[in-house]
Amino acid sequence: MSKIDVHADLKYEVRCETVFLFQIAAAHTEHQTLIWEQLVLEPKLEAERYHVGLEGNQLHRLVVQPCELKVSYQANVELAPNVNRPTSVGESNTSQMPPEVLTYLNPSRYCQSDLLARFAFEEFGQLPRGFSRVQAICDWVFEHLDYTPGSTNSSTTSADVLLQRTGVCRDYAHLAITLCRGVGIPARYVAGYAVGLQPPDFHGFMEAFLDGQWYLFDPTKLAPVSGLVRIGVGRDAADVSFATLTGDAVLIDKTVWASQSDYQNLPDPQSGGPPAVSTA
Amino acid sequence: MSKIDVHADLKYEVRCETVFLFQIAAAHTEHQTLIWEQLVLEPKLEAERYHVGLEGNQLHRLVVQPCELKVSYQANVELAPNVNRPTSVGESNTSQMPPEVLTYLNPSRYCQSDLLARFAFEEFGQLPRGFSRVQAICDWVFEHLDYTPGSTNSSTTSADVLLQRTGVCRDYAHLAITLCRGVGIPARYVAGYAVGLQPPDFHGFMEAFLDGQWYLFDPTKLAPVSGLVRIGVGRDAADVSFATLTGDAVLIDKTVWASQSDYQNLPDPQSGGPPAVSTA
Amino acid sequence: MSKIDVHADLKYEVRCETVFLFQIAAAHTEHQTLIWEQLVLEPKLEAERYHVGLEGNQLHRLVVQPCELKVSYQANVELAPNVNRPTSVGESNTSQMPPEVLTYLNPSRYCQSDLLARFAFEEFGQLPRGFSRVQAICDWVFEHLDYTPGSTNSSTTSADVLLQRTGVCRDYAHLAITLCRGVGIPARYVAGYAVGLQPPDFHGFMEAFLDGQWYLFDPTKLAPVSGLVRIGVGRDAADVSFATLTGDAVLIDKTVWASQSDYQNLPDPQSGGPPAVSTA
Amino acid sequence: MSKIDVHADLKYEVRCETVFLFQIAAAHTEHQTLIWEQLVLEPKLEAERYHVGLEGNQLHRLVVQPCELKVSYQANVELAPNVNRPTSVGESNTSQMPPEVLTYLNPSRYCQSDLLARFAFEEFGQLPRGFSRVQAICDWVFEHLDYTPGSTNSSTTSADVLLQRTGVCRDYAHLAITLCRGVGIPARYVAGYAVGLQPPDFHGFMEAFLDGQWYLFDPTKLAPVSGLVRIGVGRDAADVSFATLTGDAVLIDKTVWASQSDYQNLPDPQSGGPPAVSTA
Repeated sequence: MSKIDVHADLKYEVRCETVFLFQIAAAHTEHQTLIWEQLVLEPKLEAERYHVGLEGNQLHRLVVQPCELKVSYQANVELAPNVNRPTSVGESNTSQMPPEVLTYLNPSRYCQSDLLARFAFEEFGQLPRGFSRVQAICDWVFEHLDYTPGSTNSSTTSADVLLQRTGVCRDYAHLAITLCRGVGIPARYVAGYAVGLQPPDFHGFMEAFLDGQWYLFDPTKLAPVSGLVRIGVGRDAADVSFATLTGDAVLIDKTVWASQSDYQNLPDPQSGGPPAVSTA
Repeated sequence: MSKIDVHADLKYEVRCETVFLFQIAAAHTEHQTLIWEQLVLEPKLEAERYHVGLEGNQLHRLVVQPCELKVSYQANVELAPNVNRPTSVGESNTSQMPPEVLTYLNPSRYCQSDLLARFAFEEFGQLPRGFSRVQAICDWVFEHLDYTPGSTNSSTTSADVLLQRTGVCRDYAHLAITLCRGVGIPARYVAGYAVGLQPPDFHGFMEAFLDGQWYLFDPTKLAPVSGLVRIGVGRDAADVSFATLTGDAVLIDKTVWASQSDYQNLPDPQSGGPPAVSTA
Repeated sequence: MSKIDVHADLKYEVRCETVFLFQIAAAHTEHQTLIWEQLVLEPKLEAERYHVGLEGNQLHRLVVQPCELKVSYQANVELAPNVNRPTSVGESNTSQMPPEVLTYLNPSRYCQSDLLARFAFEEFGQLPRGFSRVQAICDWVFEHLDYTPGSTNSSTTSADVLLQRTGVCRDYAHLAITLCRGVGIPARYVAGYAVGLQPPDFHGFMEAFLDGQWYLFDPTKLAPVSGLVRIGVGRDAADVSFATLTGDAVLIDKTVWASQSDYQNLPDPQSGGPPAVSTA
Repeated sequence: MSKIDVHADLKYEVRCETVFLFQIAAAHTEHQTLIWEQLVLEPKLEAERYHVGLEGNQLHRLVVQPCELKVSYQANVELAPNVNRPTSVGESNTSQMPPEVLTYLNPSRYCQSDLLARFAFEEFGQLPRGFSRVQAICDWVFEHLDYTPGSTNSSTTSADVLLQRTGVCRDYAHLAITLCRGVGIPARYVAGYAVGLQPPDFHGFMEAFLDGQWYLFDPTKLAPVSGLVRIGVGRDAADVSFATLTGDAVLIDKTVWASQSDYQNLPDPQSGGPPAVSTA
């Protein structure tokens, strides 16, 4: 159990009437409790708040006239993850998965698991089934990619990344998701905040469905999984952009951070075997 | 209002234990009533039936041991579409769309609307908003593609199709969906049965969200929209494959057809202005 | 006839022994006479100079130890283009083209004419054959692309550009070349200098083979074709990079310009019908 | 030294005036002597014969009116390859390669060595330089691809193949060429005939430039390199199609074979270490 403060400040130059959809609010789930949160808009505007989709992602919708828009979100979140011993976590069979999970076996915009299935099967098909196989996939991604800001853009797919071998957090997650789906493990993208992320920013990581539960993984090893705060989940990054705009506005400033508010030590994400952490 | 008989016979050679997920059953919605249906399996097996996702797609799941598997689905369906005058159907604004519709603006595996947005905007951005704009997109797709069985495969995307200018029903639908999303109109893929389709097969078409409702379009013009029977919907064909397999089985025969059981004349899909038909 | 001064200054930080291949020297051809040229290297190094390939592209090869390398090339060039009336220039038939020209009908790395042939044929297949058809292709490229520095990179192909509708000179040339090949007109890439280019830089344009000769076109319309100085030609930009490195070195400065040394007025590249200019 | 009979019979239905460019004639080089050859056309037509490009590829050009066209090519060829001990063959340095070889380091239509350079370098960058490194690349390709007729088409690239892991001879050669270029070894495509190929057809293989010479490799291991008869070479298959057509004609029959005329045993291509064979 740990308490985490998250904070996102965004500033836009809005040039004509623009509809914004923000996905920046921390989720409220069984294992992630929102203790306190605040969304401040300047100028003062009303934001509609929705919960959409099967996973209850939250969306703030705003219609904004030309101005300089400031969006400031803060929250204090308590994480009470379900932690298991990795060796005790196996895989679910397709014949027994809950039907709503099956959709996370399908290929998606950035995770073309149909194209990479043979590759995934060759590399990871023979490994023992379970948590350790997903861990092996994430380790492979970590070892074979170089974390290189600017090397990819918003249209880069996991197939591109597998060839070019560079990317950022979103690309690491997309490739790991694709390889999981390729060997028959449902996997999905999680957008969120991460304690200690350098440089501070929104973070992208992933969940794999194992033994009836979603388990967290971060193939970048930039942050401990026990310090990850969920905003929302989707098939890939296309579903959980922090901001989607219809109109004309330019992001001119972004400051994001997360820190522990209760000074408990989080483990080093690159050392030893991680625990099996589930917060979904 | 019309009554339609649909029928799908599938035969597989199952070589080892295989999990099948079938999406072949006609949907039961406000405007599409299932009067009678029957699923016959040979050998006798029990199929689990699920309704998944926000749209309630139906899935039959079977675990099958090595054998020759025959799957026979029949249904009689009554369609009571909501039909409007095309000229009275406008577009919804992003600021007012129901939040669950917004996901159909996102790019997906086969509909890379992010890549084609500029093209869509250049070609269709200046057209009057509404039903006629989606119709113009479908007409463009119909005119610029050649319907060529075998010219595409299961990994072909709308970007591929826009370049190569050939495809089948699924490719026509993907391209029209992508262009709609590119100009800000939510659009989704519909798998189904079509009266009078030549050669008979499962069919793929699309829906666009206009004026608060989903409207049907078939850019192939191979069947009248009022003769389309819905199986399920998804972001693109990745979500509504008629069969998904885990294991090893080979499809050795497929017979699909749909016919009107009440002998009412359906309009010629290539002539005149179609009505605005909604069955979602 | 006009005289043009060209100038390229390059500065590299060389971090380990590096082999450089430079293609920056102005070509000497029947219609482009090198009056004077000079290559200065700092530190003093010997450069091997080669003429390679059927077109006699020039290459300077250097082996450089760690240092700060300055490369300065200057030349004075006299252009005596063969200028025809556009209406008198038709197309060559495949049955009569010189065999060495046929290779410029093949698809290449950045010009996937196989993929775009149907598109090319649909858009330009019915136009009258000849100079005006290539001009129509270049006009189409000019009108449908936005010149946007930074929107593409060194792996961007003409298929990418046709979809995304943005690019720089190299992308404009690649797309025009691809569309020419798609309708059966041999076309190739030309790297060179351009009088009056803003911002000043190396330039990329193209040649199409018409009526037994190579004719110059610049689909960016950033410079008059009569002010284009040839460095070398190739199937696409892959063949005529201004520098190719084996080793480790970083370009830290680049200054390129071309200007007329005889004050003759060049025509405005965006106005009126251009003449048919051949300097190959 | 061995003598080989090659034979290609092609039959076309020619529907309108069509220009054919055939590349089916065995090359005459220092190490491959044409003892006898014959091209028979039915109906009787004159074919122009050209030698094009730096490598002297041979081309037969025919203009054919509507008819049923039969093309029959036969030749008897003597191979006198230059055979070295693999361990004695090293790599050439970029600083010393003949300039005309450098072009085979550039990416091409089907061999996107720019995209795969990082992958190539990671997998093969640390291996000892020389013949054994190219052999290791060919072995990797042989082991990681499945030879699956129909799994690829004429637009499939080496990047596609690296992901999907299936292909035919042309795809094997493209991938091996790309990986060679990726680690700085010039490599090119060779179209030809192969003794004992099953099923009999034209064959595609490759050459790598090592120690000042072009060495033959066949990553499919379907035929011994000492039984390969060269037709022509190019950057990739785009340059050496056996037939290129302008007009309208359909290939309705193709029979190709090659056999030894002097009954000498060729080695098993999948066993032991191959010799280093050069016939260029």
